[in-house]
Amino acid sequence: MSVLALSGGVGGAKLALGLYRVLPPDALRIAVNTGDDFDHLGLRICPDLDTALYTLGDLEHREQGWGRRDETWTMMRVTEALGGETWFRLGDADTALHLHRTQRLRAGERLTSVIAGIASRFGIRAAILPMTDDPVATRVTTDAGDLAFQEYFVRRRCEPRLRAIRFDGADRAHATPEVLAAFADPGLEAIVLCPSNPYLSVDPLLAVPSLRAALVARRVPAIAVSPLIGTNAVKGPTAKIMAELGIESSPAAIAAHYAGLIDALVVDDVDRDAAATLPVTTFATATLMKTLADRTRLASFVLERARELRR
Amino acid sequence: MSVLALSGGVGGAKLALGLYRVLPPDALRIAVNTGDDFDHLGLRICPDLDTALYTLGDLEHREQGWGRRDETWTMMRVTEALGGETWFRLGDADTALHLHRTQRLRAGERLTSVIAGIASRFGIRAAILPMTDDPVATRVTTDAGDLAFQEYFVRRRCEPRLRAIRFDGADRAHATPEVLAAFADPGLEAIVLCPSNPYLSVDPLLAVPSLRAALVARRVPAIAVSPLIGTNAVKGPTAKIMAELGIESSPAAIAAHYAGLIDALVVDDVDRDAAATLPVTTFATATLMKTLADRTRLASFVLERARELRR
Repeated sequence: MSVLALSGGVGGAKLALGLYRVLPPDALRIAVNTGDDFDHLGLRICPDLDTALYTLGDLEHREQGWGRRDETWTMMRVTEALGGETWFRLGDADTALHLHRTQRLRAGERLTSVIAGIASRFGIRAAILPMTDDPVATRVTTDAGDLAFQEYFVRRRCEPRLRAIRFDGADRAHATPEVLAAFADPGLEAIVLCPSNPYLSVDPLLAVPSLRAALVARRVPAIAVSPLIGTNAVKGPTAKIMAELGIESSPAAIAAHYAGLIDALVVDDVDRDAAATLPVTTFATATLMKTLADRTRLASFVLERARELRR
Repeated sequence: MSVLALSGGVGGAKLALGLYRVLPPDALRIAVNTGDDFDHLGLRICPDLDTALYTLGDLEHREQGWGRRDETWTMMRVTEALGGETWFRLGDADTALHLHRTQRLRAGERLTSVIAGIASRFGIRAAILPMTDDPVATRVTTDAGDLAFQEYFVRRRCEPRLRAIRFDGADRAHATPEVLAAFADPGLEAIVLCPSNPYLSVDPLLAVPSLRAALVARRVPAIAVSPLIGTNAVKGPTAKIMAELGIESSPAAIAAHYAGLIDALVVDDVDRDAAATLPVTTFATATLMKTLADRTRLASFVLERARELRR
């Protein structure tokens, strides 16, 4: 059997870790957003893939929400002394990963293969799959102009008011053979849309035509976990972004966003009543994932609901 | 007034630091070997230029003989975990410099300009000048085959028996305008060939036709400091290399090697008698530079002998 998760960054990786822990080790495949990937200081950086690698490799900084917990910062200190850019904080351990990846990519290797190699070195048995090996770049239109994703998200801390989001290159990008094989696996039992930001982090995946088509043509239940608890996002600027895009922060909005792509929506207990009237199957449970136990419990909940839907 | 030093790595940088300390801060220009420069882990690394930067910037690791003394090693530890190459030890602080340089070079900036910018950031007022902005690569023929310099010097620890040394690209390389301006400066008072390895570290400079021609056409005294003390090199494999090339480790061999290019040779006190019969002016003094005082004393000695020769 196998399970396919679609994930962006931190929130998605938390549930992916839960799934990884409750499933047989080789059963999980995670298709990950690459729209945030960018070049910085001459390095190719893949924030969501690296969050998945660090989280499943048990290397992640649990309090900080990004990066590694065994990190040092000498490189950044010297970069600052040299007058280089320091707004995107690159730790020394993180830099090693970026150097390694950049070198392999420059030698002509596919990103999918590079990430598989790193995952193997980190002892990860789940398949961490870039959504595509083709270039896709998330860009945002804001009241401060057109910005690359990391310029908006990290450098400007999501402060500019958002008007639109686009995924440059997505329409010409192909889902990788590995991602399509995950959808086509005869043993596939469920597709899980992880609680990452639907607009910034999951939409890039859905903007890749062949990936979206595979999701639409699914033969197993697809369940999304809402990133909202009431009108707030658990992490990051989801609620602020929804407001700026003129979308109400509610389970209804999430359900509408994923219409036709999911068979059920998991919402937080506080949204149980709001979700009851939605035109999609909903399940309510505690969705806040602070501890590992929270993650495995939510993962088990989602997998059990998928099992019920398959009957 | 100005002084021009020609330097390779550690031994040369020690004397260059002595010159820097005894001269007015803006008076020193150092033309540095770039034959050791290479690409590694996707970074452009310039060992001799960096040794000059770290030494004159008061950042060098005094016991180790290379690198910075405030270094950390996280990047290398993770590179090892990823199965990457670790035979060339890159510290986290050092990596910041390489990233910075690589990025600026890739943007089309000249190496000379990049190094000047870094030197300025390090508070260095001497001009640290790459011998050329063109590609030159030192390669060695050994009993273990044809090797790139760092493969031979670092990875193989100079263990293969040396048969020949060459400087790929040197015949087509141009000394930079800055280096040629240093030779042409009307205020130039002396040219100092620092006690780096003559065959591996100074010869690349002399292999650049316009640099060699400028040295041959000098109008001020050129003084070399021998890297030998008796039949031993102070640092590194100079004596071993001389033996393998069939050259006797002696002041006579150094004098013959620099024939026509120098007006005087400074040898160690222990070589006073051996140097007395050479066909070039020789001066004997203590040439071992353990402390900063050793370096400034030797620098003053060389500058005074140059002053005498000018009379």
